[in-house]
Amino acid sequence: MFGVLYTSRDVVSSAYAGTLIATFSTAVLCFLGLSWTDERWRIPLAMGGVAALASALGYLGATSLWLTEQKASGAIRYSGWFTVQPLQVAAVYFFASATGKVPVGVFWRMSAAALLMVFSRYLGDAGFFNPTLAALLSIAFWLYLLGEMYFGAMPDIVRKGSRAVRLGFFWIRLILTIGWAIYPILHFVDVVIGSGQASGVVALYTLFDLINLLTPSLIVLAVASQERY
Amino acid sequence: MFGVLYTSRDVVSSAYAGTLIATFSTAVLCFLGLSWTDERWRIPLAMGGVAALASALGYLGATSLWLTEQKASGAIRYSGWFTVQPLQVAAVYFFASATGKVPVGVFWRMSAAALLMVFSRYLGDAGFFNPTLAALLSIAFWLYLLGEMYFGAMPDIVRKGSRAVRLGFFWIRLILTIGWAIYPILHFVDVVIGSGQASGVVALYTLFDLINLLTPSLIVLAVASQERY
Amino acid sequence: MFGVLYTSRDVVSSAYAGTLIATFSTAVLCFLGLSWTDERWRIPLAMGGVAALASALGYLGATSLWLTEQKASGAIRYSGWFTVQPLQVAAVYFFASATGKVPVGVFWRMSAAALLMVFSRYLGDAGFFNPTLAALLSIAFWLYLLGEMYFGAMPDIVRKGSRAVRLGFFWIRLILTIGWAIYPILHFVDVVIGSGQASGVVALYTLFDLINLLTPSLIVLAVASQERY
Amino acid sequence: MFGVLYTSRDVVSSAYAGTLIATFSTAVLCFLGLSWTDERWRIPLAMGGVAALASALGYLGATSLWLTEQKASGAIRYSGWFTVQPLQVAAVYFFASATGKVPVGVFWRMSAAALLMVFSRYLGDAGFFNPTLAALLSIAFWLYLLGEMYFGAMPDIVRKGSRAVRLGFFWIRLILTIGWAIYPILHFVDVVIGSGQASGVVALYTLFDLINLLTPSLIVLAVASQERY
Amino acid sequence: MFGVLYTSRDVVSSAYAGTLIATFSTAVLCFLGLSWTDERWRIPLAMGGVAALASALGYLGATSLWLTEQKASGAIRYSGWFTVQPLQVAAVYFFASATGKVPVGVFWRMSAAALLMVFSRYLGDAGFFNPTLAALLSIAFWLYLLGEMYFGAMPDIVRKGSRAVRLGFFWIRLILTIGWAIYPILHFVDVVIGSGQASGVVALYTLFDLINLLTPSLIVLAVASQERY
Repeated sequence: MFGVLYTSRDVVSSAYAGTLIATFSTAVLCFLGLSWTDERWRIPLAMGGVAALASALGYLGATSLWLTEQKASGAIRYSGWFTVQPLQVAAVYFFASATGKVPVGVFWRMSAAALLMVFSRYLGDAGFFNPTLAALLSIAFWLYLLGEMYFGAMPDIVRKGSRAVRLGFFWIRLILTIGWAIYPILHFVDVVIGSGQASGVVALYTLFDLINLLTPSLIVLAVASQERY
Repeated sequence: MFGVLYTSRDVVSSAYAGTLIATFSTAVLCFLGLSWTDERWRIPLAMGGVAALASALGYLGATSLWLTEQKASGAIRYSGWFTVQPLQVAAVYFFASATGKVPVGVFWRMSAAALLMVFSRYLGDAGFFNPTLAALLSIAFWLYLLGEMYFGAMPDIVRKGSRAVRLGFFWIRLILTIGWAIYPILHFVDVVIGSGQASGVVALYTLFDLINLLTPSLIVLAVASQERY
Repeated sequence: MFGVLYTSRDVVSSAYAGTLIATFSTAVLCFLGLSWTDERWRIPLAMGGVAALASALGYLGATSLWLTEQKASGAIRYSGWFTVQPLQVAAVYFFASATGKVPVGVFWRMSAAALLMVFSRYLGDAGFFNPTLAALLSIAFWLYLLGEMYFGAMPDIVRKGSRAVRLGFFWIRLILTIGWAIYPILHFVDVVIGSGQASGVVALYTLFDLINLLTPSLIVLAVASQERY
Repeated sequence: MFGVLYTSRDVVSSAYAGTLIATFSTAVLCFLGLSWTDERWRIPLAMGGVAALASALGYLGATSLWLTEQKASGAIRYSGWFTVQPLQVAAVYFFASATGKVPVGVFWRMSAAALLMVFSRYLGDAGFFNPTLAALLSIAFWLYLLGEMYFGAMPDIVRKGSRAVRLGFFWIRLILTIGWAIYPILHFVDVVIGSGQASGVVALYTLFDLINLLTPSLIVLAVASQERY
Repeated sequence: MFGVLYTSRDVVSSAYAGTLIATFSTAVLCFLGLSWTDERWRIPLAMGGVAALASALGYLGATSLWLTEQKASGAIRYSGWFTVQPLQVAAVYFFASATGKVPVGVFWRMSAAALLMVFSRYLGDAGFFNPTLAALLSIAFWLYLLGEMYFGAMPDIVRKGSRAVRLGFFWIRLILTIGWAIYPILHFVDVVIGSGQASGVVALYTLFDLINLLTPSLIVLAVASQERY
C-alpha cells in the first residue's frame, strides 16, 4: 500500500512517531493518575510521569531531526537520557520509600551513578574519551545501580510491602536489568559491526528504548492505583 | 465558493483537520470530566481521554504530512494506533472493573491481543510479512477481543451494573464490533481494488476512524457522569 | 502608521489573530472557572470551554493558512464547526439540565440536528450537493434547534430556575437565533453577490463568528459563577 | 560580544522575547496561585492570569513576525489588546467585588469602555477613521475608565477592605493611570514625529507595555495570597 | 558513531537540548509537587517551578536560534534571565517566609537588586554602556543579594526552622554564591580572552547555567516534600 514510503525511509519515522505518542500518552496518564492515587505514591508517580514526558521531548527532537535531515543522531537521544534515566532511578528510590524508610544516602549514590552512567556513555560517543573505556565505565555504573537494587537497602524494605509493591519492584528491577542491557549491546553493534545507522537497527533499538521508557512509569501507576483500595 | 481548494485537495485536509479538532476536544472534555466524576470511574475515563489525545497526535502528524506532501501515509496512522487501540481495550476492561471485580488475566490477554492486532496489521502493510496473512492474523486477534467482550468474564459482571453501565458497555462493544470492521474492509479495498489513496476513500475512512476514536471515550464520560448522581 | 501592512492584507489577519486569542482566553477562563463553580454547573461549563478551545484550534488553522497562502478557506472553518456547534448545542442542553430534568431525547435530537446543520452546509459549500438546497436544509435544521429552545421542554424547566439562569438562557438563545443567522446570510452574500472572499466581508464575518463563539461560553461561566453564592 | 546581533536587530527581539517569557510566566504563576488563594479571590486572579496569557500570545505573534519579516506590526499588538485590556478592567471590577458588592452596571459600562477604547484606537491606526479623532476618542474612553475607578462606586467599597486590598487597588489604578498613558503618547510620537518604527522606540514601548501587562496581574496575586491568612 | 554531527556542531546543540528538557522537566515536577506539599510551601515552590519554566522557554529560543543560524546569542539568554533570576531570588524570600515572618522590605530590595543585576549586565553586553563598568555594577548587585542572604534578616529566621529548611537554605545560598559566579567569570573570559563563542565554552557555560537553574527549584521541592510529614 504505502510501500514506497515505508521502505524508503518510514520504518524509522513510524518507530519514532509511535514512541513519541506512546511516551507522551504515558506521561499524561501518570499525571492524571495523581488525581486518584494515594498521597504517599504521588512522588514516584510524578517522577515516572516526568521521565516519560522527558522521553517524549527527546523523541520529538529525534523525530524532527529525522524528518528534516534523515539522520538518527545519538546526540538527541542523550539530551533526553540525561533527564530520563536519573529520574527513573529516583522513581525507583521513592517507590521503595513509599513502603518504608530507605536511607537518603541510597538516593544520592543512585542518582549520581545514573548521571555518571549516561555521562560516561555520552563522552565516549562524542569522542571526548576513549569509547571502549567510556562504555566499560558506563557499564560499571549500571552494575552499581543493579547492585543497589538487588543487594542494597531497598529490597529488604520492599519485601515488607504488599504483594503489588513486591511484584512492581520485581518488574521494574527486571526492566532495568534486561532492558537497559540494550544500550551497551547497541554500542557494541554500532562500534564493532558498524551498522548502528541501519534503519532496522534504529527501529529495533527504538522499540527496546520504548519498553524501557514506558513500562517503569506504567508499573508505578499500576501499583499506586492498586494500593489505593 | 472555495471550490478550487475543496476539489483539488481539501476533502482530505478538512476531514483530517476536523478529526484532529474533534479528538483533541474529546480528550480535553474527558480530562475535565475527572473533576466531576466519581473516583472509581476515573481510571477508564483517563484512559479514554488519553486514547483520544493519542489519536489527536496521530492525526496531527497525518495532517502535517498531507499539507506538506499531499500523501495520506498509513505509517502515521499506525503510530497512533499502537497507543490508541490497546488503550481503548484497556479502558473497556477498567470500565467493567468499575462495576465489579474482573480477573486481571482478562486485562493482560486483551491488551496483548490489541497490541498484536495492530502489530500484525502493521507488518503486513509495511511489507515485512505476507499482507494477506497479516490481515487474517489481525482479524483473528480482533475476533478474540470480541470473544472476550461477548462471551468472557466482562459481560457477566457488567450485567450486574446499573442501566447506564449496561447501555454504555453495549454501545462500546457495538462500536468495537461494527466500527473496527472498517480496518479489514479498507485493507481489502486498498489491496484488491487498489483505490485506497483516492481522496474519497481516505475521507470516508477518516470519518469511520473518527467515530471509532471518539465515541468510546464519550460513552465512558457519559456513563461516569451519570453514575455520579 | 503600519498602513501598508494593514491595507495590503492585515484586516483579515488581525481579525483572525484577535479571534484566536479571544477564543483561547475564553476557553482557559472557563476551565479555570471549574475550580470555583458548583459541581452541577461543571458539565455545561466544560462543554462551553471545550467549544471555545475547538474554535481557537479552527482559527489557528485559518490564521496559518491565511499567513502562508493569503486564502480564507471555508474548509478550515468547517473543521472547527463540526465540533463547536454540536458542543454549543449540547452545552445549552446541560445548562437547562443543571436546573431540572430535561428528557434525554432532547439531547439526542438537538445534537443530531446540530451535526446535520453543519454537515449539510458543508456538503453544499464543498460542491457535493446542490448549494441552494444544502443551504435550505441547513436552515431547516437550525430552525428545528430554535424550535426546541423556544417551544420544547427546555424553556419550561429553565423558567423554574433562578433569575441568573433565566437571563442566561434568554441571552444564549438570542445569540443562537440572531448570531447564527450570519451563516446563511453570508452564504447568500457569497453565492449570489459573490464577494465572500473580500477582506471586509471576511473580517465582518469573523467578528460575528467571534461573538457566536465567545458569548455562550462566557454566559455559562457567568451564570455558573453566580449560582455558587 | 554578541555586538553584531544586538546592534543589527536584536534590541527589539530581546525586548519581545523577554516580554513573552515574562508574561507567560506571570500567567502560569497566577494559575498556580488559584491552588492556594481563597475562593472569593479566584475570579479576579483567573482574569489577571488569562490577561497575562493573552498578552503572551500577542507577543508570540509579534516575536515571530519580527523574526521572519523584521516588522514591528501594530496589528498583532491589537489582536492581543482586544482581549487583554477588557480583561484587565474586568479583573479590577472583580477585585473590588471580592471585598463588597459593586453594582453590576459598573462592570458592563467599564467592559464596554475598555473594548471601545481599544477599538477606536485600532480604527484610527488601521486608517478606517481619522487617526487624530480616533486617538481622542480612545483617550475619552480611557478617562471614563479612570473616572469610574477614582470617583465611581468601586473606591468606596475598596475603602472598607483590608490594608492589602486598599494598597493593591491603589497600585493597579496608578498603573492604569500612568502606565496606560504610554499608548496615546506613543501614538503622538509615531504620527507627529514619525519615529514609531525605530528600534529604540519599539523597545521602550515594549518595556512600558510589559509593566502594564504584568503588574496588575501580579498585584492581584499578591493581594489574594495575603488575604488568605 | 555520530562523530561528524558531534564534532561539527553538536556539543552546543546537545547541551542546549539537554538543558531544555531538564529545565522543563523540573518545572513540571515542581508544578505536580503542588499536589502533595503543604499549603504554606506552595508559593516558593510555584516560583521555583515558574523560574524553571522560564529557563526552558529561554533555552527553547536559544536552541532554535542555534539550529537555524549556528549562533549562540546572549540576547536570548537575557530574555529568560530577566524573569528567571528575580523569580529565583523571590523564591528564596518566600522559602524563608514559610518558616517565619521576614520583613517585606527584604523582598522589595532583593527583587530590585536581582532585576538591576541582570539589567546592568545586559546593558554592558548590548553595548549601551561601558561593558567593564556594567559588569562591575552587576557584581555589586549580586554581592548585595549575597549580603542579604548571609547577614540580613533571613538567616536568623531560617535558623529557627527544621533541619530540612536549614539545609535547603544553606544549599540554595551556596548555589547563588558559587554557581552565579560563572556569569562574571564568563564575561571576563569572553571579553578579555575573547573565546566566548567557542563550542566548548558555550557548552561548559550551559552546564553551569543548568545547575544554577535546576537545583534551587529542586531543593525547594525537596524541602517542601519533607516538611509535609
